[in-house]
Amino acid sequence: MSPPTHGSRAKCLQRLVRLSLPVPRTVALSFDTVHTIAQGQLPDMPALIAAFDPGALLCVRPSSQETDWGGPGAILNIGMNDARLASLAEDIGAEAAAGLYLRFVEAYAVHVARLDPDLFDEIGESGAKGLARALAAYEEEAEEPFPQDPQRQLAEVLRSMARAWEGTTARLLRQARGAPVDAGLGLVVQEMAPGLGRGECGSGVLQLVDSQTGLPQITGRYLSQSQGREALTGGADSLYLERDPRGRSLEEAAPEAFALLKDYAGVMRRRLRAEMQIEFTIQNGTLHILDGVLVPRSTRAALRIAVRLAEDGIITPEEAVMRIEPRAVSELLHRQIAPGAARSVIGRGIAASPGAATGRIVFSAAEALASTARNEPCILVRRETSPEDVRGMHAAVGVLTERGGMTSHAAVIGRGLGLPCVVGAARLRFNLQRKTLTSERGQVFREGDVITIDGTSGDVLEGSPATVEAALDEAFHVLMGWADAARDIAIRANADTPKDAATARNFAAQGIGLCRTEHMFFEADRLTPMREMIFADTPKDRQAALAILLPMQRKDFTELFRIMEGMPVCIRLFDPPLHEFLPTDRHGLRDLAEALDLPVSDVTRRVQSLGEYNPMLGLRGVRLGITVPEIYDMQARAIFEATLDASREGAPPVVPEIMLPLVSAKREVELLRGRIEAVATAVRTERGRDFTFRLGVMAETPRACLRAAEIAPFAHFLSFGTNDLTQMTYGLSRDDAGRFMSDYVSQGVFNEDPFHVLDTDGVGELLAIGAERSRAANPGITLSICGEHGGNPDSIAFCRDVGMDYVSCSSFRVPVARLAAAQLALRAKGVKLPPKL
Amino acid sequence: MSPPTHGSRAKCLQRLVRLSLPVPRTVALSFDTVHTIAQGQLPDMPALIAAFDPGALLCVRPSSQETDWGGPGAILNIGMNDARLASLAEDIGAEAAAGLYLRFVEAYAVHVARLDPDLFDEIGESGAKGLARALAAYEEEAEEPFPQDPQRQLAEVLRSMARAWEGTTARLLRQARGAPVDAGLGLVVQEMAPGLGRGECGSGVLQLVDSQTGLPQITGRYLSQSQGREALTGGADSLYLERDPRGRSLEEAAPEAFALLKDYAGVMRRRLRAEMQIEFTIQNGTLHILDGVLVPRSTRAALRIAVRLAEDGIITPEEAVMRIEPRAVSELLHRQIAPGAARSVIGRGIAASPGAATGRIVFSAAEALASTARNEPCILVRRETSPEDVRGMHAAVGVLTERGGMTSHAAVIGRGLGLPCVVGAARLRFNLQRKTLTSERGQVFREGDVITIDGTSGDVLEGSPATVEAALDEAFHVLMGWADAARDIAIRANADTPKDAATARNFAAQGIGLCRTEHMFFEADRLTPMREMIFADTPKDRQAALAILLPMQRKDFTELFRIMEGMPVCIRLFDPPLHEFLPTDRHGLRDLAEALDLPVSDVTRRVQSLGEYNPMLGLRGVRLGITVPEIYDMQARAIFEATLDASREGAPPVVPEIMLPLVSAKREVELLRGRIEAVATAVRTERGRDFTFRLGVMAETPRACLRAAEIAPFAHFLSFGTNDLTQMTYGLSRDDAGRFMSDYVSQGVFNEDPFHVLDTDGVGELLAIGAERSRAANPGITLSICGEHGGNPDSIAFCRDVGMDYVSCSSFRVPVARLAAAQLALRAKGVKLPPKL
Repeated sequence: MSPPTHGSRAKCLQRLVRLSLPVPRTVALSFDTVHTIAQGQLPDMPALIAAFDPGALLCVRPSSQETDWGGPGAILNIGMNDARLASLAEDIGAEAAAGLYLRFVEAYAVHVARLDPDLFDEIGESGAKGLARALAAYEEEAEEPFPQDPQRQLAEVLRSMARAWEGTTARLLRQARGAPVDAGLGLVVQEMAPGLGRGECGSGVLQLVDSQTGLPQITGRYLSQSQGREALTGGADSLYLERDPRGRSLEEAAPEAFALLKDYAGVMRRRLRAEMQIEFTIQNGTLHILDGVLVPRSTRAALRIAVRLAEDGIITPEEAVMRIEPRAVSELLHRQIAPGAARSVIGRGIAASPGAATGRIVFSAAEALASTARNEPCILVRRETSPEDVRGMHAAVGVLTERGGMTSHAAVIGRGLGLPCVVGAARLRFNLQRKTLTSERGQVFREGDVITIDGTSGDVLEGSPATVEAALDEAFHVLMGWADAARDIAIRANADTPKDAATARNFAAQGIGLCRTEHMFFEADRLTPMREMIFADTPKDRQAALAILLPMQRKDFTELFRIMEGMPVCIRLFDPPLHEFLPTDRHGLRDLAEALDLPVSDVTRRVQSLGEYNPMLGLRGVRLGITVPEIYDMQARAIFEATLDASREGAPPVVPEIMLPLVSAKREVELLRGRIEAVATAVRTERGRDFTFRLGVMAETPRACLRAAEIAPFAHFLSFGTNDLTQMTYGLSRDDAGRFMSDYVSQGVFNEDPFHVLDTDGVGELLAIGAERSRAANPGITLSICGEHGGNPDSIAFCRDVGMDYVSCSSFRVPVARLAAAQLALRAKGVKLPPKL
Repeated sequence: MSPPTHGSRAKCLQRLVRLSLPVPRTVALSFDTVHTIAQGQLPDMPALIAAFDPGALLCVRPSSQETDWGGPGAILNIGMNDARLASLAEDIGAEAAAGLYLRFVEAYAVHVARLDPDLFDEIGESGAKGLARALAAYEEEAEEPFPQDPQRQLAEVLRSMARAWEGTTARLLRQARGAPVDAGLGLVVQEMAPGLGRGECGSGVLQLVDSQTGLPQITGRYLSQSQGREALTGGADSLYLERDPRGRSLEEAAPEAFALLKDYAGVMRRRLRAEMQIEFTIQNGTLHILDGVLVPRSTRAALRIAVRLAEDGIITPEEAVMRIEPRAVSELLHRQIAPGAARSVIGRGIAASPGAATGRIVFSAAEALASTARNEPCILVRRETSPEDVRGMHAAVGVLTERGGMTSHAAVIGRGLGLPCVVGAARLRFNLQRKTLTSERGQVFREGDVITIDGTSGDVLEGSPATVEAALDEAFHVLMGWADAARDIAIRANADTPKDAATARNFAAQGIGLCRTEHMFFEADRLTPMREMIFADTPKDRQAALAILLPMQRKDFTELFRIMEGMPVCIRLFDPPLHEFLPTDRHGLRDLAEALDLPVSDVTRRVQSLGEYNPMLGLRGVRLGITVPEIYDMQARAIFEATLDASREGAPPVVPEIMLPLVSAKREVELLRGRIEAVATAVRTERGRDFTFRLGVMAETPRACLRAAEIAPFAHFLSFGTNDLTQMTYGLSRDDAGRFMSDYVSQGVFNEDPFHVLDTDGVGELLAIGAERSRAANPGITLSICGEHGGNPDSIAFCRDVGMDYVSCSSFRVPVARLAAAQLALRAKGVKLPPKL
């Protein structure tokens, strides 16, 4: 029995045998053997049978490489036949023996002979009568009597289980769970300790921890005169294991066996280095260990289990770190719908920002603010969100949109705020005028109705199902500490506001990798000077409008720098097209005309003339910086003044990082560097104090990557903006891709949504080119990514491989990224993934 | 005197001397010498003076490497002083001698001593009195007497000319004409044959061809007792050269000198291998040749001159091909504003499609059709054009738009149709509601007013200035024939309609490289089924709508195939987003609701739901092909049925090329290839006839280039769509770039508009990667480009270098491309550019 060729169950049993636990005689068939069986060639059956006691009943269980790849169900009691019935009746009574035979006939008929299961449902009787009817039914349907030869029975069972594994449905199912195309199946043939008979006989399941909480707690049931896992469904007849006020226990019924079982469980935990769920049988008072699998566990439980194993010295802290799936960690950061809660699903969308939120429906940002003022939690429902909705999003407990994908505005902001968010729920009918939301089945929800969104699954639910709170407990912090010790790539957070920055610090981000400044201009007191600036006819008028914004921006940055206490803060200068700040509806245009004291027709014309066909590819980023240089001048000044204001005696000095967006040519960087340095000199002179800053480039056009060798000498850092870079490499707008992305992924045109998982082939080649060329031209340059991909474990692996210094992601993805990065470093050091049991 | 170091004038004079023509004694100063002079260090002046007859007057002329890089004006009569005045008065009379001295004093004062020119304008007298006043004025202003030492005079002249060349203005001017930063200036010092004096004395200019037409015709003037080029401005006193009914001629006045001059001109044409303009002097009956420069010439004249030189055996046909600037050829294909015509410019835009057009202003496509129906040529004036305007564009003689750049819809269609077009004329105020166009100076033009647009310069002019017709004459065809013989890369045309295809053939395109099919769906009888198709809820309804379009598409393709007579026709399947076919205004929505028999609210909702943030990056191209496969099915069927319908006995079979747009992943190609092959099989079966076709990919996303090795095995050809590729590589929408592109180019952020000249650094690297990887994976693959860059000579050079098989461009750019490609091949063969004289 050699593990990688026989599967995890075989491997576990082998180890139990080596630990001298009382495991019934077992033979494991390798993947190759089982594959050969599926092809029609059986192993040496007489030799196989001869490995067991003559007359023993056998069971066959699947043993694939990973337990959760599935496999055919176990078949018990192989070897039962008319002759054995008679002899067994003497041991355990006629009815029990008949029951046992009947169960075998049923299992064999359905899973091996592939007869219609309804056949046996109709029998309606147990015991000897039921058995007789079942045997007759079998004979009629199969057109032969039930096979009596144990060797033939076993052969047929093996053949049917081998073939089931190779069927199309089973293959697709396990591939969906990550199995390779050629994943093999091993089979374990084991002599049965039937759990039926004279003396104390029965079977049960035990584990030492609670599956939901992960806390130490002997958990499981035992049922006399039962087999397999029947104890778990045995109701009131099943015993508790430990002494328990709720009812009888195995500890009382069979204290010695129980003590032994507890000892064995402890041995298994220590020696298999994992919390195991143990299947056991007591046969006439004697304990047998039949099987062990990893305890099923919630993410929270997995984390506590791993930490406790490490604290108990059973595994190393590094191994504990390897045992937690990074993606699962994000569950812990958010409230979730309780595992067993009833879910009345009224619609589905893209799970854009994890967590569950329950609230009253509101259809506008203003209503969201009003609802929150009334202390009524609300879900903001919009066709899509825009920057004007951000304050409403802050007020709401969750966001639901009709349009958009993983990187739509709602999704990005939602993840940044840790706000549960379901987007692209196109099959719900949104009527924003009538303020209704209609499910596919015609159920109408109105403003004020309570719904729940599950941003982890993408479901939209009626009412308020039970939820469980976020779980940032001691074990979480211990594990993340171990992860940080192992990590060799830094993790920063994308954070735009003081609140974001506080979250980032809370999740131990090592700085801010992307602070978008444009959101700062949507607040009510800023929008008017912003619009005046846009409408200004001369640089002087523009400067006048910007002078009003300067102290506000300075305050923004001062706060951020203070919260981050000397950690790096990378500020992206103004990026979006100016028309995003202008109204388009009649009402908004009239308001604006009033505010600017201009005729509506003038305002309308100006607004229209600023419109763009493809705003993503228009006058934004450094293009604005060069054509309307006053904006960047103001921002640079605000940053530098804030740098001085936030620097405190004795504390590490603030060294702001200024990032230029949408660069496509080195001259853009050269020109703006000159201008920003001039502002720095002016501020130094005015304040009579010195400071330093770092200037860098957001590499988000393919051309910036290709020309990195030219650009790098002008930059202290290069941060790859993988959202835009993906858009441009594919020629695919993230906001518009939602309409066909699911078709594309389901047809296999794209393996994954490239806005979700970094396209290492195409976008990745550009990243690698950009990293290599910029490093060669400027060896001291700092490299990073700051797109949505920054929080994705596969993408972090890629970034680490191409030699980036850090990745930056939404604050709420920081723990995921820390853990994923730690695992990459540990894997590189040779620390293995946990053995799959 | 060695040419590349002394400039073209020096070189020409050297050759005239070697041909034993009577050139006065000449000394040439090299670029280095002149540069040293500018630094303040004069050459050995006594030695220089000693090279000439003692007491001779001298002139100094500039000699830069290319004549049109400019340079300081010539200065004549150096050496004149009070003493020389007296002796010269004996030879040529006191007044003439004084006049000569006066001219030198003036020239010296203004250009060498840099005195105020007004000083001499006020003198108002000529002859001895004028001279006396001028000398006095000089002395007062310069605070020293007029220098009398000829050596000092010459030294000052040399110094001032050398310094003038190195001034900032002169440098910027010549750089704008293509001179390198370090372009040098040579100076030619020549003994004067003054053209004044006893016997027949005078000067003149002669050339053997007409500068405008290029036809043989002795052209020029001669003026007795004159210097330099005074004969050309001498009015009625100047003689014709050849006997002429309009007046007296040199032939009559000095038959021997004229005969000799004609002989010398013939020698110069044959031996300098070019049509020269000759400056000559007759000094007491003796002919002197002072200078020769290339005859100034229109493009049409240049072409005729080159062809005639080759036909006369003076140069080779290959050299003739090298002598024509490809870009200039496009002038010949269009009517132009006459060179001398008065231009009342009312606005300026981007010169998007060359040629001049005069017509009445109309503000809508419908008005354009009506105007043309009344036989009144019209200029279509729009804010921007969209596919719905195409029929109006066909009707108009020119298009003027407020928005857009070189690759906006109006520009692309305009160039395709050979329709003069000025776009992005943002400083004209367009009021489409009031139907007025207002110039910056406030002049208002209304519907029906006549304007002229100059698509060659970008000017918009009032009224109807004189124009000259297109010049596709015999010489043009002869030269293009020679070019085609030399060329080693094929040239195809982008052509969407039978009219385009006919133009393409007229310009000898070797097939159609890009036939866009979407324009076909905008015609009135097609738009309704198209919209029904878009609104269809099931594949079956879609097919029903498409079934109406099938015979129309089949007819489109049949016509194209027939016109192209077996030449390749590359058809790009449907590309634009579907919402382009839907109305957005209230009126259009109501019409559509009526046509589809649906409530307006439904129609509006559907139209809105199809809207996109960035249509360029949305659901279009193969993405539509995969998600709404019925469209491509219909188009493939139409193409295949047309293939059979257009194939004739005995003629080469039609082999259509089908191109998939906007590919970004190989699986897109794989899936659609399967579908299209299935359609081909079905058509073959139904018709009982066989045909072949080629399937290829439009590589227009960065990812398609990067992943070319994967894609190429599924494609017969790969055509790089450089418009979209440029947009995505820069992250820059061509439709939105107009707002800042001119700022960007003028600030040197981009060297050139990348939509105009291929960005070989960035976009070019992707092309090179795509070409190399696809060739490696599929050596037989055909490679080409089919963007707007196809007609640009630099871009063609790049395509040839990376091994493309053909370039495809607008029909009206085909001759430019043929000539440019020929020159590249000839240059590679070692045929040199013509010597610059």
